Amino acid sequence: MPLNESFANVLKKLRMQKGLSQEELAFKANLHRTYISQLERGLKSPTLNTISTLADVLDISLTQFVKSIQEDMK
Amino acid sequence: MPLNESFANVLKKLRMQKGLSQEELAFKANLHRTYISQLERGLKSPTLNTISTLADVLDISLTQFVKSIQEDMK
Repeated sequence: MPLNESFANVLKKLRMQKGLSQEELAFKANLHRTYISQLERGLKSPTLNTISTLADVLDISLTQFVKSIQEDMK
Repeated sequence: MPLNESFANVLKKLRMQKGLSQEELAFKANLHRTYISQLERGLKSPTLNTISTLADVLDISLTQFVKSIQEDMK
């Protein structure tokens, strides 16, 4: 699984576990809803700052977030 | 410690442990030397793809790379 697709899978899974819509996640992370949609389709590679912001909103550590991505890639 | 500064610290440390110059690392990672220099000064937030590429070149897992960054932030 390519990296951006695994990031997309993990982001979507964590967002849904929190019961958030893309719009709600975007608002909480101060990002654009369109950008969240692009991330969840694997169309963009997020920056480290963006990953960290999303991890905060989703109540997961940066390391655990990236670990989940790496596991999804297998 | 801000995130980009911690990334900078970890990148520089790992590069030096490998005995690589910024130019050599840039060549192996297929990135521009100027960009490596900007990353090592905390001026840029790397994308997930860039972090993954650098992790590969530096023989460290993506998760371990990010874990080191998070530890440096404390």
